[in-house]
This record gives sequence, C-alpha cells and structure tokens, in this order.
Amino acid sequence: MEKLKGQVTIPTDMDVIEETVRLAKKWGADAVRDCDGTEFPIELKDAGMKVYATYYTTRKDNAWAKAHPQEIQQMYLMTPIYTADGDTLRIRLMKGLHPQLLALNTSDDITRWWEVIDRSTGTVVPVSDWSFEEAEGTVVICSEPFHDYTVSFLAYIMWDPVHMYNATVNNWEGVEHQMTFDVRQPETHAFTLKRLEHYIETHPYVDVLRFTTFFHQFTLVFDELRREKYVDWYGYSASVSPYILEQFEREAGYPFRPEYIIDQGYYNCQYRIPSKEYLDFVAFQRREVAKIVKEMVDLTHAHHKEAMMFLGDHWIGTEPYLEEFAKIGLDAVVGSVGNGATLRLISDIEGVSYTEGRLLPYFFPDTFHKGGDPVKEAKENWVTARRAILRKPVDRIGYGGYLKLALDFPEFVEYVEHVCEEFRQLYKEIAGGKPYCAAKVAVLNCWGKSRSWGCHMVHHAIYHKQNYSYAGVIEALSGAPFEVSFISFSDIRERPGLLGEFDVLLNIGDADTAHTGGEWWCDPVVSSAVKRFVYEGGGMIGVGEPCAHQANGRFFQLANVFGVEKERGFTLGYDKYNWQEHPHFITEDTGGEVDFGEGKKNIYALEGTTVLVCRDESVQLAVNSFGAGRAVYISGLAYSFQNSRLLHRAVLWSAGKEDALHCWYSENLNTEVHAYPNNGRYCVVNHTDEGQDTVIYRGDGTSFALSLKASQIVWFNMEG
Amino acid sequence: MEKLKGQVTIPTDMDVIEETVRLAKKWGADAVRDCDGTEFPIELKDAGMKVYATYYTTRKDNAWAKAHPQEIQQMYLMTPIYTADGDTLRIRLMKGLHPQLLALNTSDDITRWWEVIDRSTGTVVPVSDWSFEEAEGTVVICSEPFHDYTVSFLAYIMWDPVHMYNATVNNWEGVEHQMTFDVRQPETHAFTLKRLEHYIETHPYVDVLRFTTFFHQFTLVFDELRREKYVDWYGYSASVSPYILEQFEREAGYPFRPEYIIDQGYYNCQYRIPSKEYLDFVAFQRREVAKIVKEMVDLTHAHHKEAMMFLGDHWIGTEPYLEEFAKIGLDAVVGSVGNGATLRLISDIEGVSYTEGRLLPYFFPDTFHKGGDPVKEAKENWVTARRAILRKPVDRIGYGGYLKLALDFPEFVEYVEHVCEEFRQLYKEIAGGKPYCAAKVAVLNCWGKSRSWGCHMVHHAIYHKQNYSYAGVIEALSGAPFEVSFISFSDIRERPGLLGEFDVLLNIGDADTAHTGGEWWCDPVVSSAVKRFVYEGGGMIGVGEPCAHQANGRFFQLANVFGVEKERGFTLGYDKYNWQEHPHFITEDTGGEVDFGEGKKNIYALEGTTVLVCRDESVQLAVNSFGAGRAVYISGLAYSFQNSRLLHRAVLWSAGKEDALHCWYSENLNTEVHAYPNNGRYCVVNHTDEGQDTVIYRGDGTSFALSLKASQIVWFNMEG
Repeated sequence: MEKLKGQVTIPTDMDVIEETVRLAKKWGADAVRDCDGTEFPIELKDAGMKVYATYYTTRKDNAWAKAHPQEIQQMYLMTPIYTADGDTLRIRLMKGLHPQLLALNTSDDITRWWEVIDRSTGTVVPVSDWSFEEAEGTVVICSEPFHDYTVSFLAYIMWDPVHMYNATVNNWEGVEHQMTFDVRQPETHAFTLKRLEHYIETHPYVDVLRFTTFFHQFTLVFDELRREKYVDWYGYSASVSPYILEQFEREAGYPFRPEYIIDQGYYNCQYRIPSKEYLDFVAFQRREVAKIVKEMVDLTHAHHKEAMMFLGDHWIGTEPYLEEFAKIGLDAVVGSVGNGATLRLISDIEGVSYTEGRLLPYFFPDTFHKGGDPVKEAKENWVTARRAILRKPVDRIGYGGYLKLALDFPEFVEYVEHVCEEFRQLYKEIAGGKPYCAAKVAVLNCWGKSRSWGCHMVHHAIYHKQNYSYAGVIEALSGAPFEVSFISFSDIRERPGLLGEFDVLLNIGDADTAHTGGEWWCDPVVSSAVKRFVYEGGGMIGVGEPCAHQANGRFFQLANVFGVEKERGFTLGYDKYNWQEHPHFITEDTGGEVDFGEGKKNIYALEGTTVLVCRDESVQLAVNSFGAGRAVYISGLAYSFQNSRLLHRAVLWSAGKEDALHCWYSENLNTEVHAYPNNGRYCVVNHTDEGQDTVIYRGDGTSFALSLKASQIVWFNMEG
Repeated sequence: MEKLKGQVTIPTDMDVIEETVRLAKKWGADAVRDCDGTEFPIELKDAGMKVYATYYTTRKDNAWAKAHPQEIQQMYLMTPIYTADGDTLRIRLMKGLHPQLLALNTSDDITRWWEVIDRSTGTVVPVSDWSFEEAEGTVVICSEPFHDYTVSFLAYIMWDPVHMYNATVNNWEGVEHQMTFDVRQPETHAFTLKRLEHYIETHPYVDVLRFTTFFHQFTLVFDELRREKYVDWYGYSASVSPYILEQFEREAGYPFRPEYIIDQGYYNCQYRIPSKEYLDFVAFQRREVAKIVKEMVDLTHAHHKEAMMFLGDHWIGTEPYLEEFAKIGLDAVVGSVGNGATLRLISDIEGVSYTEGRLLPYFFPDTFHKGGDPVKEAKENWVTARRAILRKPVDRIGYGGYLKLALDFPEFVEYVEHVCEEFRQLYKEIAGGKPYCAAKVAVLNCWGKSRSWGCHMVHHAIYHKQNYSYAGVIEALSGAPFEVSFISFSDIRERPGLLGEFDVLLNIGDADTAHTGGEWWCDPVVSSAVKRFVYEGGGMIGVGEPCAHQANGRFFQLANVFGVEKERGFTLGYDKYNWQEHPHFITEDTGGEVDFGEGKKNIYALEGTTVLVCRDESVQLAVNSFGAGRAVYISGLAYSFQNSRLLHRAVLWSAGKEDALHCWYSENLNTEVHAYPNNGRYCVVNHTDEGQDTVIYRGDGTSFALSLKASQIVWFNMEG
C-alpha cells in the first residue's frame, strides 16, 4: 500500500531546523508551526511545507500596552466572603491574587463598576456606606455586625495568564511579562488591524495565520504562590471592561450590574443555571467578537493567507456552535484534543474549510523529562481520539511545543509516525462519508448547542471527581454510533415539537445545575413536552440526578417517567418494597459489575419500576415503561469500554430498538464497528493495547469471527 | 446488701396467674398490667401489686362507633402523583390502601374537604374541573395533558391501626376489628367521660388508668397486602376531621386548606421545614387535646385513681415538651425504650410525678419464638438504656406483651431479674441527684424543644439508612456528661441572647431539612446571632450538611465559621489546596479510623481550616477557629462508644474546655464515669459484654486503675 502523506502539522524552533525537516519527512507533515516561546526559523520557509504562524492579537507588544493603559484587558473578580465582626469591615482586594497578574482598575468610576454586597441578605451596600483606601487597596465597609460581605471589582490583566502559565511551567527566567490589550477598544482596535497587516506584510512566507486566539482569555487566575486559583474554560469574566459593558448596556436596554458577571462568586460557570442577563451578555459578546474577527479574517484573506483559529486560550466570545460563527469566514479551527469529546468539540464545528486536532502530549518538560513516558500519554490520547475521529474526523492532526524535547524520545518519534499514518489511512477510508447511526440522541441541558461536547467540562478535558461520572457519558457518545445533538430547555419551550426529531433524550448531572435544569422542570410546557415525548414512544436516559429540583412533592420531577425518586428524608415515612434486581438487555454485557463512578445514594424505585442494579440500599440502575416509551435511570457512568457498551444498550432499549443491536456490531466490547454505507466500507477497531477476539455482525445480521492485534483497526468492504 | 424491691411493672394475662405471682416476686415487681390482646385476671387484684389497666379512649366499643359513624376518626391522605395522558385523568383513591383500614369520607362536603392539585404547577384544580364517581371511588379530573395530579381526601379510620398491627403480627384470627371514634367530637366526648367513669366504677381494683393513649394515633397506614405503607411517629395527619378543622379555622382566622396537612404528600414529616399553618395547627391541637385530657385526668383523680399516659400510639397532640402539658396533672408517663434517646424522651418530661420506661423486647412472637434470642435483645436494650438512665433516670421500668411467651425462655427471665435489681440499685444511688455536666449544649433545628430527643426519628427508634448518622449524635448525647437543650430558629429570632446560655451549639442533618434549617439561615437575625455566638467564644458543631442552603454564593451558610463548604459543581473552577490531615485533641482516641456512618461527599476545606480526616477527596472532619470561638465539622456520626468519645472531645474542644477532659473521666472509651456531686457518689460503667481495664480520673484529676467485668457498673464515694 502506498504511503500517504500530509494532513500533519509539526512544531519547530530556531534550534531544531534540520531535525524539523527530518521528522517532517518521517511523519509526513505538510505544515510547520511556531509556538508560544519558540521562534520560526526562516530557513524552513521553503521546506515544502505550509507555514503556520502563531499570532497573538492581545499580547506580545508591551510598548503598546504601556502606552494605552486604559485599553489593557480587564477582569471582574469577587473577593472571598468575609464576615464583619463589628460595624466596620476592611477587605483587601488583592489578597489571594498574584500581584503581577492583576492590578486594580481604579481609573474608571469605582462607584459605578464595583459593587459591595451584603451576602447575608443578598442586597447591595449603598456606595455611601463604603470607601476605598488606595494605599492598601482596601475597601472599608460600614457593616452590620456578623453579616457577610463581598466586593466585586475590576482589575487590569497585567500579565497574560497563558503567558504566565507557560512561563511558570517552563521556568522561563528573565522573560518580560506579556501584557494584554483589548482589541475591542477603539485605539487598540485600529492598531490591531494595522499591526496584523504589518505582520502579514513582513512575514510573506507565512501561509496560515494561526490566531491564538482572538480577544478574550477564558477565566484563568493565579494566586500569590503562582498556583492556579481559578479556571473556567468557558468563563466570560475576563472579557469585560467599562467600554464593553456600556455598549452592552445600550444594547440590552437595562442597566448593567457587576453581579451579572460575578454571579455570587460563581462567575456563571457551566454548572450554574444561566440567568437571562448572562445569556444576553454572551450573545452580545458573540456578535461583537464575530464582527471584529471578521475584519481580521477579511484582512488575512485580502493578503491571500489563511486564517485559522485556535479553539482555546482567548477563544471566549467566538462560540463556534452559535450562529454568527459560520459567517465569519475563518478557514480553519485547531484545538487541543484531550479525549473523544474534545475531538468532537473541534470536528463538529461547521462553517470552516477544515479542522485540526492538536494531539497530546504537548512537547513541554512536564512530560518530556527524564523518567517521563510520552509514548504512554500519546497512545492513550490517540486511541481515545481515534474512537471519536471514526464518527466525525478532524481534517488534520498536529503537535505543539518544543520539538527538541521530543527528539530525546525516539520511541515517541516512532509512535507519532504510526499515528500520522493511521490517521491519514482512516481519513481516506471515511472520505467524508456519514457513518451508520443506530439512533438519534439529544443531550438536554440549559446550554444546548452552545456547549456541544463541552458540557460537564471545567478546564478542557481535566478530571474532576464531581464531573467524571457525567462527562463519561459525553465521552462514550463521542465515539458511539449515534447522531448526537445538544438541546436546551429554551429550545423545547420555543418549539416543543423539536423532541420529535430524536429517538432518545439524555439528562445528565446533579440536581439544580444547568446540566439537569433545576427550576426549568417547574415550567409545565417543558415538563409536559418531555413527558409526552416519552409517553408517545420516545426514550429517556437520566444520569445522576436528572430532572431533579425540590418542588411540588417531588425531587425527581420526572419520577413517574424514570420510576425512581431520591430519599431526602421527606419520604422516610413511606415504606419501600421494590429493591429486587432483575437481569435485562441493558446489563447483558456487564458481567454483573458496573462502574457507576461516583454514583448516587438514596435512590429508590417506585412501584412497577424494574430495578437492574441496587447497591447498599440504593438503586443505581433501573428501567421503567411510561406509556409507549421507556426510561433508564443510571446513577453515574464513568467512561470505560464496558460503560460505553452499557450506554449503547440503554440507548437502543429506551428507543425500542433492541433488534438493531446486531447491526454493525462487535460482540467484544473492547472493539467497535463503524460502517460508512455511502463508501461501502466498514472497520473494526480495537481500543485496547492487547489482542482481542470477537464476532462481528454486518448490517444484515450475518456474522464472522475476527482477531485483532493490539490497537489494530481493520477495514472491510461491505459486500466482502 | 439488702435486696431492693419495686419500681417494676409486669404484664399478665388470664392464662399465667400463678406465673405472674412467681415472676413478680422474682423481679421485685410492684405493679401488674394488662396489654392489647390480654385480659387482667381478677385473681391478681389482691396480689400486693398496683394494678395498671390499659385504657383505650378511642376504640374497644364498636357498637358506639357503628352508631356514630360521623364521629369515627379520620385521616387526610394524598394519592400518589399521577400523570395525565390526555384531557381526562381518573384516579382511584383507595389504590394502595388496605380496604378494611380506611373508608372514604364522602359524607362531608368533598368540594370543601378534598383538594385536587396540579403538581406540575402547584395550583389547585377548581372544583368545577373534577368530579367523584362513588361506585368506583374514583376522582375524574379535566386535565392538562401530561400534567401531574394528586387528590387529597379524608377517610374514616375503620380499623384502629395499632389494633390492626397487633392483629397482623400476632396472627389474631376471628378478632373483630376495633373501630375508632373521635373523643374530640361532641357526642363521643360526652360518651367518653361517661364510659371512663363507668369503667372506673366497674373496675374498683384498678389503681392506675394507663391511657393508651388519648385521642389521635400517629400516622400509620397499611397497604392492600397489610404491609406498612406509611408511618410517622410524629405525624398529625390522622388527627383531623371537618369538626376539628372548622374549629381550627375559627381560631387561626384564615381558611383551612387540606394542603396544610397534606404538604405535597410529605405530611409535614419531621424533615420538612414546618410551615406557619402547620405549626398553628399543632398548637391548636395541643391546646384542645390538653383540655379534654385534663377532663379525663380530673375524673380519674376524682375516683382516687392515678392517670398514666402511654407516650406512643394515640399520643398525638399531647406534646409532653410543650407548655400545656404540665398543667394537665397527669400522674405518670410511660413509654417504650428503644435506645438512650427514647429513654430521655420519657425521663426528661416534666410535670408528672413519675415516668416509666417499657423495656424491650416486647413479649411478642416476633422475638419469642423457637430460635429467637430475647436475651440478646434485652441486653442491648438495657445497656443502651442504662447509659441514658445514668444521666436522667426514669422512675420505673416495666415490660409488655404475653408473659406466657417469656416463660419459655428461662435465661431471659433470669436476665430481667438482673436488670430490675441493677435498675433499683442505680436509681437509689442517683437519688435524684444532678449529674456532673462538663458543658451545656444545645441542638438547634426547626423543632426545638417540641422534638427533644426525638429529632431524627421517623418511627420511634427504627433504623433508617438516611438518619442513623445523625440520630447517632442524639444517642451519644443521651448518655453524655452534658446538659442538653433543644432549641429552634424561632427561639433565636425571638431572643438572640438565648445562645449565651450554652457552651456549644449543634446543627445536625441534611441540607434543607428542618434538622438543619434551610432558608432559616437566610434570616440575618438568626445567622448573625449564631456567628456572633461563636465569634465571642462559643462552640459550634455541625454534622452532615449543617446550615446548608444554596443562597448568596454559599451552600454552607456558615462556611466562614466551619471553614468547610460543599462542592456542588458551582465552585469546581476554584482550586483547592487544603487537604492535609492533622492530628488533634478531638481524634486522639480514634486510632485513626472514624465511622462517619453515611458521611458526606464533596466537602472541601477553606484556607486556614484544620483538616482532621479526609477520605476519597472529601473532608470528613475538620476544625476551625472563628474569632474567639471554635467550630467542628463532622460528616456524620453513627452511634458507637468510639464516636461518643469523639463527640465528647469535640464538645470540650469547641467549648475551649479541653482541660476539663480528665474530670470524672475514664480513659477506656468502652467505659464511662458519671458523678453525682450532690450525693458524693460516682460510678464507672462498662458498656460492653466483655471485661475492660481502664484508668479513672476523679473530679480533681487524680486517677486510679480499674478493671470492670462485662457490663459491670461500680459505685464509689467521692472522698474514697
């Protein structure tokens, strides 16, 4: 078979020119890039590769920042909650914040842009009852004894947080801290377009402007010890300034309040049920960011260069899953691939010519050090990403960081060659074909399309004890043979018929979070639409505390649908008799043991519900019929091949499609089948690092035995 | 030593006359009683014992009940929540209810006393939109498709639930079901006084009328299979009738609604934060019940008999911890002793001449059968009760059930003799003396004094997975050297200075239950008073989810006091660095392992808090300083000797009284010291069934070694 080439991006630096050429050949790379902290060696401009240039719109020009201090980027911050022990409370605002990262914005009217709140009552403290002592950076409040208080304030971002992170993790010494500037503000805006044009003109060998990224960093704060203090990959609190907020106020038609961004100190994180004002703000930002991004893209195009966006760092406001995005005209999106879900986060984006996944590990010394095992990380990353790529591929892959570090790990270099070859092969096989889908599923939460694949995510693909049992479902879906949509409660409210487009609805997460919906379930339009959907034959899968909100005699608002409820003490008086476990289609592959991750406690089954797994006096898995439809309750589902299979079966069962199980199906759950009817091809993929034996079922239910080598992927013709 | 006699009550029956005399002598019994299902043999009237007669005010006269069907007792019930699948929903009211237990009350105006509620919206369905089909007992609702509905209705209690329970558990065949009648209603009221007088006159040998009980059964419902369906030892939903509710309406001054009793189907159980209307209703019932109880007590006294109340069965409305009770003039209260807390529930009652504890096991065939081990149950019961008796003794003990059954277990008969002797001995030693108290503690919840010792209780001392980790604290307190009060949030609101009377405040339970307070913590008068209390040097112990209610940027509203918070997803963006465990005064006796019962997940420590135990990324035990005061967070505390010691230490530490530890103290935590300074006596008690070695510290800190035999209690003179 002829060796394929291309679709791969390699990082470079001044000190690895020859090695770049050698590895590019080995890996079949057709593009070369610089990174934060590296320089592109001009010698490579004619190496036969496309040249990507990392372009920073908001930093790397401290002279400009210093000359325009009012246009340095800003962030809204809230102090911790302090308790007054008398009638005066003094709060030093910068406590717990790195002094080189942030500087208080006292140049704008603090009585307008800061807010002191009595958190015992939730009321705003009148401006007349507090003052600011500049010398110590302290707000002094006339307090009610033993009430709690916070101060919300604006601070300038004096050191770009990603630059600070990179400097810290790489121990950069003597590197000038890159200040930020705000492209949205008038002078910087004008300057930016000129600066970009100048850059393009002075870098004629650059083919692709790799914007890293646009205007607003996701929220990232460090404490005095340079430790990460707060991070939210979806956070908008570092996208603010009085200039922007006054525009917002005019558009929204109501007065702005810091609390709209501060949100009691929760900063509107993804777990919070979003307020109207916050959604208004995001929509405003999205439109304004799109406008200026388009100017920069147009300028790039005018110079016959491509514009690529990095989906990370300063991506806030671009919202690739919302409407304006496709109209911007970007050529490409590139993003970091942490797992299957983050792969789909990139590859499902519409409105660009191509997408690129930056695989892990990043060539940084945290992995590439003596004793480090980059091959292990790379294998896990690739096998995980591959599962999702087979559903919806990115068009390219690439790596980032210091190439020099990778050179010390020859096994790693070999493994990357294998990855690149396998990627190109499967991309060619898929050839844009739509894979076979056994069911149409929709994940229902407060965010809908806007947080496609990224729901349950805090800081990109980082593990949290509180989210892996839910993120595991999204990860399972990222490589499952389903058509996956993400819809919101507002979507249902606006168009209850929307649900008719799906076979199965999923509601995943903890009670009273945006992931499950909280008070939305008290809207009878929404709850009735969902109940009708199931009653008329739809499937519903709830994970954790689906539809849970304490109201009207219920915690699980769809208790009648799921047939389960949570004991919160209020129903201890009711005797419960339904605890017996039953075998079921859904659990046929589990061998009796399911890893529910964190699971849930105190769940009990109502009369008539079929309990599948009960542990320690708590139902973990149960199924229920509701009218013509079916519902499945799962207490949590950490990602694993076994759980992926369990979810697969739960989707088919709830959709009433058990008969479709043996269609493009592999009996051994460590392996999966993906079929591309348009191309007449299908593959069997082994997700493990060991050989696997299985039986493969074709689309017509005929089957054959197959042995796969470790991690192997095998392609077949459908007629074969 | 001379053998003491008396203070013991023995049950009897027609078939065990001689045996009663023999055992009464053996046990030193000075009173004899009949029980439900037994008859008092007249031969025993001159056996030298006081004669108790179980007297049923509300049953045992079916002729009366049948002749006055309107005055049969009633109960409010709610159907399950049903989902409408179209514009008509039919709900059969008696589904799931035993047909011999209840009969729908259709004789009173159902449009006034029944209520159909749309549980999707929480609104009442107008009477014009539903109707009742008598033939099938079905309510037909004009429904909104896919809304949820319930019907609240009144039913007559056709079979006394305790009689039904006794009949079922004893397989009584051919026994006529005892109907109920309502002593509060006019005809039955008049009849009851005559009936009582007649009873007394025709039973001249009876010394003590043992009322079992007064007028209203705690809520107890059985399903079609005679299984317990719903039970609440504190439930008021079986204390209603239109007659009573119309009186209530007049007193309250606002219209009655069934929902005040139904409470979304939660029936105002102890976990629910009580509504104003429910508290009004309880207060009304309390006053009305007290009035009629007093009439019966006065009548009893007029005939020179004693009036004893059984704290159980129909005790609802008597509320022994609320004001009217002491004025009634009852001579005695007797109650079942399930553990230390239920012992104190009886022995702490004021305003009666004496209290009596009915020890377990009850002489019923569920324990006294071939293969049964009544001695084991009796030992556990006694050792547990004894711990509490040493703090505050009941004045008498006794047993109940069929004496005949006990006769087949000679070891049991022996053990009871030992119990009776030990009880008399320690009662004599204590001699009304106030035991040494190391601290004054107050349990803070929504119920305060009214649920003294009974908070966290569903059905007397019955275990529930969801309550044992909290009830364990109450159990530990029942025998601990502290003065224990139970206070409510209203108490604080009315008198914030109240807190100054205590050393340590406890708040125990799950979030948003009446045990922790829920929204009460958003009342700044309450939250500030508690914070001030601690800040000025008070101690605070929180167990489970103390002070937890999601509001104003906090789940734990006293997060600054406890120094811990719960991760509910909203603060995942905040990095948390305080996980390191520290040794501490509180955990010195734990040997590193603490049984937190159910514990809690997702608790993290704020900066500055001292973590004592952290498991699986969750803080289980932590301490924090707040001003001059101290707070302790414990995730749960199942009852054990070890945890009792941990709580003891936590109380002393939080009160700043660590120095008082070695005062009337035993080093071995399986044993405890109780001192009675007024009497100049102290004892050491071994709670285990094995010998124990320990070191005993006297009040002056001097110590000596001591060995105790299994379960032994040893008495000393203080000067000794």
